[in-house]
Amino acid sequence: MERTLTFQEIILKLQEYWSNKGCLIWQPYNQQVGAGTMNPATYLRVLGPEPWNVAYVEPSVRPDDGRYGENPNRLNQHYQFQVILKPDPGNPQELYLESLMALGINPREHDIRFVEDNWESPALGAWGLGWEVWLDGQEITQFTYFQQAGGFVLDPVSVEITYGLERIAMALQRVRHFRDIQWSPSRTYGDVNLQGEYEHSKYSFEVANVERLWQMYNLYEAEANAALEQGLVLPAHDYVLKCSHTFNVLDTRGAVGVTERQALFGRMRDLARRIAVAYVEQRERLGFPWLKEGAVPQADTVSLAVSGTVSQPDLFLLEIGTEELPAADLQSALEQLREKVPALLDELRLSHGEVKVMGTPRRLAVLVENLSPAQPDRTTVVKGPPAARAFDAQGQPTKAAEGFARSRGLDVSALKVQEIDGGQYVVAEVFEKGRSAVDVLSEALPDLIASLRFDKTMRWNASQVAFSRPIRWLAALLGSTVIPFEYAGLRADRVTRGLRFYQPETFTLNTAAEYQNVLRSQGILLDPEERRASIAEQVQRLMTEAGGVPKLDESLLDEVTQLVEAPTAVLGTFDPAHLKLPAEVLISVMKKHQRYFPVYASTGELLPYFITVRNGDNQYLDIVADGNAQVIGARFADASFFIQEDLKYTLEERLPRLGTLTFQYKLGSMLDKSRRVEALVDKLAPFFGLSQSDLATARRAAYLLKADLVTHMVIEMTSLQGIMGRYYAEHSGEPKGVADAIFEHYLPRFAGDALPETLPGILLSVADRLDTLSGLFAAGLAPSGTKDPFAQRRAALGLVQVLISRQIPFDLRQGLALAAQGLPITASEESQNACLEFIYGRLRTHLMDDYGFRYDVVDAVMAEQAHNPFGAYRAAQALTAWVQRADWNTILPAYARCVRITRDQKEQFAVQPERFVEVEEQALYAALLQAEAAPRQPGSVDDFFAAFLPMIPVINRFFDTVLVMAEDAGVRANRLGLLQRIAALTRGVADFSKLEGF
Amino acid sequence: MERTLTFQEIILKLQEYWSNKGCLIWQPYNQQVGAGTMNPATYLRVLGPEPWNVAYVEPSVRPDDGRYGENPNRLNQHYQFQVILKPDPGNPQELYLESLMALGINPREHDIRFVEDNWESPALGAWGLGWEVWLDGQEITQFTYFQQAGGFVLDPVSVEITYGLERIAMALQRVRHFRDIQWSPSRTYGDVNLQGEYEHSKYSFEVANVERLWQMYNLYEAEANAALEQGLVLPAHDYVLKCSHTFNVLDTRGAVGVTERQALFGRMRDLARRIAVAYVEQRERLGFPWLKEGAVPQADTVSLAVSGTVSQPDLFLLEIGTEELPAADLQSALEQLREKVPALLDELRLSHGEVKVMGTPRRLAVLVENLSPAQPDRTTVVKGPPAARAFDAQGQPTKAAEGFARSRGLDVSALKVQEIDGGQYVVAEVFEKGRSAVDVLSEALPDLIASLRFDKTMRWNASQVAFSRPIRWLAALLGSTVIPFEYAGLRADRVTRGLRFYQPETFTLNTAAEYQNVLRSQGILLDPEERRASIAEQVQRLMTEAGGVPKLDESLLDEVTQLVEAPTAVLGTFDPAHLKLPAEVLISVMKKHQRYFPVYASTGELLPYFITVRNGDNQYLDIVADGNAQVIGARFADASFFIQEDLKYTLEERLPRLGTLTFQYKLGSMLDKSRRVEALVDKLAPFFGLSQSDLATARRAAYLLKADLVTHMVIEMTSLQGIMGRYYAEHSGEPKGVADAIFEHYLPRFAGDALPETLPGILLSVADRLDTLSGLFAAGLAPSGTKDPFAQRRAALGLVQVLISRQIPFDLRQGLALAAQGLPITASEESQNACLEFIYGRLRTHLMDDYGFRYDVVDAVMAEQAHNPFGAYRAAQALTAWVQRADWNTILPAYARCVRITRDQKEQFAVQPERFVEVEEQALYAALLQAEAAPRQPGSVDDFFAAFLPMIPVINRFFDTVLVMAEDAGVRANRLGLLQRIAALTRGVADFSKLEGF
Repeated sequence: MERTLTFQEIILKLQEYWSNKGCLIWQPYNQQVGAGTMNPATYLRVLGPEPWNVAYVEPSVRPDDGRYGENPNRLNQHYQFQVILKPDPGNPQELYLESLMALGINPREHDIRFVEDNWESPALGAWGLGWEVWLDGQEITQFTYFQQAGGFVLDPVSVEITYGLERIAMALQRVRHFRDIQWSPSRTYGDVNLQGEYEHSKYSFEVANVERLWQMYNLYEAEANAALEQGLVLPAHDYVLKCSHTFNVLDTRGAVGVTERQALFGRMRDLARRIAVAYVEQRERLGFPWLKEGAVPQADTVSLAVSGTVSQPDLFLLEIGTEELPAADLQSALEQLREKVPALLDELRLSHGEVKVMGTPRRLAVLVENLSPAQPDRTTVVKGPPAARAFDAQGQPTKAAEGFARSRGLDVSALKVQEIDGGQYVVAEVFEKGRSAVDVLSEALPDLIASLRFDKTMRWNASQVAFSRPIRWLAALLGSTVIPFEYAGLRADRVTRGLRFYQPETFTLNTAAEYQNVLRSQGILLDPEERRASIAEQVQRLMTEAGGVPKLDESLLDEVTQLVEAPTAVLGTFDPAHLKLPAEVLISVMKKHQRYFPVYASTGELLPYFITVRNGDNQYLDIVADGNAQVIGARFADASFFIQEDLKYTLEERLPRLGTLTFQYKLGSMLDKSRRVEALVDKLAPFFGLSQSDLATARRAAYLLKADLVTHMVIEMTSLQGIMGRYYAEHSGEPKGVADAIFEHYLPRFAGDALPETLPGILLSVADRLDTLSGLFAAGLAPSGTKDPFAQRRAALGLVQVLISRQIPFDLRQGLALAAQGLPITASEESQNACLEFIYGRLRTHLMDDYGFRYDVVDAVMAEQAHNPFGAYRAAQALTAWVQRADWNTILPAYARCVRITRDQKEQFAVQPERFVEVEEQALYAALLQAEAAPRQPGSVDDFFAAFLPMIPVINRFFDTVLVMAEDAGVRANRLGLLQRIAALTRGVADFSKLEGF
Repeated sequence: MERTLTFQEIILKLQEYWSNKGCLIWQPYNQQVGAGTMNPATYLRVLGPEPWNVAYVEPSVRPDDGRYGENPNRLNQHYQFQVILKPDPGNPQELYLESLMALGINPREHDIRFVEDNWESPALGAWGLGWEVWLDGQEITQFTYFQQAGGFVLDPVSVEITYGLERIAMALQRVRHFRDIQWSPSRTYGDVNLQGEYEHSKYSFEVANVERLWQMYNLYEAEANAALEQGLVLPAHDYVLKCSHTFNVLDTRGAVGVTERQALFGRMRDLARRIAVAYVEQRERLGFPWLKEGAVPQADTVSLAVSGTVSQPDLFLLEIGTEELPAADLQSALEQLREKVPALLDELRLSHGEVKVMGTPRRLAVLVENLSPAQPDRTTVVKGPPAARAFDAQGQPTKAAEGFARSRGLDVSALKVQEIDGGQYVVAEVFEKGRSAVDVLSEALPDLIASLRFDKTMRWNASQVAFSRPIRWLAALLGSTVIPFEYAGLRADRVTRGLRFYQPETFTLNTAAEYQNVLRSQGILLDPEERRASIAEQVQRLMTEAGGVPKLDESLLDEVTQLVEAPTAVLGTFDPAHLKLPAEVLISVMKKHQRYFPVYASTGELLPYFITVRNGDNQYLDIVADGNAQVIGARFADASFFIQEDLKYTLEERLPRLGTLTFQYKLGSMLDKSRRVEALVDKLAPFFGLSQSDLATARRAAYLLKADLVTHMVIEMTSLQGIMGRYYAEHSGEPKGVADAIFEHYLPRFAGDALPETLPGILLSVADRLDTLSGLFAAGLAPSGTKDPFAQRRAALGLVQVLISRQIPFDLRQGLALAAQGLPITASEESQNACLEFIYGRLRTHLMDDYGFRYDVVDAVMAEQAHNPFGAYRAAQALTAWVQRADWNTILPAYARCVRITRDQKEQFAVQPERFVEVEEQALYAALLQAEAAPRQPGSVDDFFAAFLPMIPVINRFFDTVLVMAEDAGVRANRLGLLQRIAALTRGVADFSKLEGF
């Protein structure tokens, strides 16, 4: 076995490796940069059409990542190794993986994964799609296809590979802390850089003078502009980098408010864009000199002759081989294919057996059994001119008939006459020979692939095809015959690829039937359901082995299923000392960051284990587990650091900082929002029946409501908002009730989440949402289409959920009006109404989808009680019982008769008892008076019916005997008035006219 | 033959090479630095006792070296490769040279030289001694032994090796311009960096906003202080680097005045020192952890047993083998050894034949013929007690005698009695056996070497020995016997080394007699005289071959003689287009920068050739010539760039900038000085007889007098001041007379230089010097000892030279008084007198040394005419003729008789003719009256003697007959008065009493 490389040897190896691959070896930049991307060798060179292949080290400074040298792998300055390949060489992932092997990493001994991670730099006007590369759970590389930079759409696209050298070194050398990395044979990383980590952390977190740094920032910006005015791209870029670094230090010092941040990002982005424009113009003036040279050789694409014919129905295979698809995109692509493929085959008139659509992150596969080798022949009737025009008086075909026959390729004698839509027309029966499946699929498959849609797509090569991630191979077989087509610069073939790092790398398929077998031979489970089941089984087994309960997070299971081809669950442990951290933090870190399954004891407490699912077989699991343990340990240590830092201040001490965190431009800061919620608490309290002590709790909680948003832990993991608020409130000496209310006000955070239990929590939950909704609608920021950046749908849904589940009758109209009073802007009536309608929409969905009420029942109760969600719910519940009664068909019609006849009357008629003519009228009036007098709870369906039921026979008799629409206008009006009073009995309860059968 | 390395491969090779030699490979710094030295990996790590070996690339930014990408090898940013070896490994030069070979440089095909170049960074409080390494005339590396940094004396010393990567690449790839360097197989240096060169040059020279940069500077400084107060060494250092870079840009923009510069340097130095202190304290607190490890292995030192005895007089050899000594140090060491060695041998009582002291830059050699193998035996007589006390009355020895005998190791019977100084004493004759030469030399040689003195010395290893450059070997033989001793950590041996790069590298000497032969076998000419003659012959031959005249600059020849061991002259050419530049510029560049001999046509004009003297044989001279041609071409291009830049402004337009160039703190700027000279011109004009047109010329020239000091060309090469002033004046449209006067006012610049020819030039030369001298003396800055920073000796000497050579009678007292009137400070009478005395001192030396006048003649004339140098000169000349006359011994005594008798009279007596008693008195009086009436030019010696000679017989008669000191007081007073009047005849001419024979 080779000696383990030192840190400096890793760099030398990478330089040598990429130099041999045709990269220019460049040097770190002489500015403090946050990443190698900011080096002009990336930032500028990816612009424009010229090829560029480069590799270099970049010591990257991120002040807010400074940990005083204490965190195992989080540093103020880490060393990146940056590679840019422009254009895409066709096999950048493979080139990258080969480089890892050059470093002595045997991929079979590890779990190497490409985990979705997109990249965006608002300050640079740049974004790209790609992955983090994980080595045993540790992010060791960022791999990105740049789509845009400086506001330019990039063509060609550049591949950016950014190695995190410390992490690679730690994995290679199997050390647990960056300081123990052997840098050279005689010196460690800690020897040379630990002191710097401490000092720079201290400087950025504690010492940097905010006032002076702002001055520097402004000077840099001015100087960047001055340089740019003279067309000096590089000096201007240097100053933008200085701006960026200074900004980062200021941010680390906590000196940048949200509004300021946005403004500065805007200014930096503008500068970056102008620099990009100036650079491209400069190169253009030079005539893009590097274009003249030969492009970097593209990876070989094998060109195959098409051959063979198919005579029997056979298995059809389409495999779209990709670089690792994001879980959601894989899921979505499978769903789309499940819908599109059968439709396509129908359209193509290809008969077939079962259609199976399966896939893994690296392949989308369609398998169709017994696909017909060809379309059936068919005869179609084509309508020609009217028979009268087609034949002359002698019955001889006219020119019109001849022309029609000719146009259809028939002899005029073959034309027939047929009645169509009541007229006589000449028709041609056209025979169409069924085309071979191979032919029609050849034409159709490119369009099929092109029809797949994703939330975000990317381009990668000259084909300009956009897809979720690059497509790297295509296999298409009908039985043993290749269906030839080209797409995305590839030619479909009979070759598939196996699991990464396993031999053989490729398989040539004689027939489509071999496909699943060859995949299975390397452990690839193509069928997501099978994978899911396998993972669940393995994970639960390990949970049990670890002494835990087999409790699985289903959504995590879904996600993990989409992340691996050949799942093997691995059990790892972490230092039990970390269990002192809040459990939510541990769970969040495990699930969100690492996609690990936590392990719970039967008591519900966490055990010091985690389960990860590797992509590969069960060899070297100890190494994989060890690497992952290292990662989670560092992550926990980091959380611990944040919490320690946060605990240096009470929540109350955080409030001033909260004033710099903008909620929304027009609506002020998060602190302003808290103040509004605080005021609203007093106004709403009467409706919620709070005791004085609960009210005090609610007020205090409102005062501190959002303070946790400016803690390190929440800034790092937003999903912990509220959880950390509660934790820090407790540690700030707040009463438990206050801490709980702070936590609860965020509830429910997601579908199926818990709901607030305490009255203060409930009140705050409602108040916060009322403020959010009324404010954002007033600011003109109603959600539209798929856009809902402030998550108002969830706010509205949460609002009604809380009110219903906690059985609180509450008038939303009043609530919104009270909330609107506190806003810094005016809420127009239109905006308030729109807001109400928006909430009603959520309520309607909630009642139907979550409670299963019939739509008509929901509509009926909402027509009268939508403003009071709990009332509407209660009414829907009662009404549902009524409509299910056997005698419902006698109840509803009686009421309906009263309503229908009065419905179109514009006028409200008074009842004048003295003018009743018939006894039935009088009887009905008497019944009405009785019903009206019955005691009823507001909105109660049951109370209504209790009052109404006795009237039914009276009503029926009335209509059987009395002509409502009497000729005498006075009599008519009196009768209509009577019926109007009956119809009005449902007011405030429901509108039964919305019910089926009305 | 191997493929030539690309730029990136050169870096990779060097990283690999030094990594294999135990260096840690470090990365470029993330600040704009002027040199790799400023990277903390050098600047901090060289401090303190811990070992440290490191190598890294450093892109180094020097704004004022920016040339818009136009100069072949001068760049805004160049790439250094920096190596630090701490402590000295014992063979750093050899390690370095091996690295060049690793790059594919075959040293036998080139001329590789170590050329004295010391390094000092006032801003960093650092200095060191070392060399530029030349490859065919091109500086490719700086090689320095750091002696001090941050104000700390370094122990151990660090070796710093700084490669200039572009120059190495250009040499390897044989390209003529940096832009043509192949960086990678597909990209040139120009491809990736040319645009940056242009842009950064434009930014630094034209665009950078001075006001903003000053603000940045101050913010950086404040932030550095803030960081330092918290003990944050690295953040503080970063800000000092930012200060430094910002300062450099400001300087390039021409925004830094001299006073400001000094102040800022002081502040930066102070910061750097405090950072250094803080760093060392930090390491000390940690217990200097790296000290615990084994030190880097030192180069082997061979330990030899001492053996053999010498029985016959034989040749003695002492060779001190060194790294390349500076020319002046070599010269000085040889002179010291020539004086010390014979004295030492005398002291050691070792008889010997001829002593030859010879040497080259790499060795100091002492060869002594027929050195006695031992001291002679000797008997010394030791004085004891008086005989009277040593023997009692019976003649028996007393206790005193016994004690004395015992103390000398003799029996009392061996005592003898001897007369000493007139007394009788007991004496002992002590016999001393002569010691062997090997023994006494073993003891004496270390002291001999230690006794050598140099202007600047350095330490390099743990021995703490200080020498001009490291001593690397010692050879000491008497005949075939090694004289064993140790010095500077070395043991003397019989091994010498040959010429660098030649085989064998070492020679083991059987006897001292082989020494010169083995050196000669590799072409080394040990004897400087022989080398000088060889170089002169070769150079003159090449001059003739090139069609020039064999005109040699003797001082350059002296210098070159000390720079090589095995001289071979090489003829090179340069582009004749460069001949358009001022010849002085070309000559300066060739001589000062490159030590090339220019080649002149018989017309005196330059030819497009140069001659360099390589160290080595006559192989591959074409490569050597080509490399040197490349260098000189780039240097000329650079001069051309400067001149082009300078010509963008007229001299007059330079004047405001001149206001920022301080002459001296109390005396204001150079512009102030020009204004003073301008005013002085008017005052002095009457004494110099200027026409109105000359006066106008002088005034205009004074106005522009120093403007060329702020031109790029003069800033670059101070020796061109005046020359460039004349050139730029001409190109600014000034009249020729003005241009010439500007040039001439600097004359004479050195011994033997030309003198001003035109009256305006003469006047300005005098005025400028009067201002300088009166001003500096008034400011309390008279030169003292060897300190003469303002070159006042030369100014004073030039002043008198000009006045004498241009035959201008001028009263210096008046001149200084007029100059003093214009000063911004008061010139006290003492300071004016001191200044006069100082000038008189130069005049006296000048008259004696340069004109050869006898000291007594000079003293005589200076006693009366020192204030008027030309008068003094003229008088000395005339007086010299008189004192050489045959009848001088009759002339002087006659006058002397008159003077001597009156000399001590305090009183001045009046002559009363009526009181003459004797006829001889009356005759003398008559003669006196005649002499007094004779027409005489002021100060004329001849006129004096013409008047005086007729008096001589009368004087002689007077003394023969008249008793001057008569008893009658009145008579006596009258006679004395008469003689006093005679004595006074020399007033204003000379004081003959100073003459010999008076």
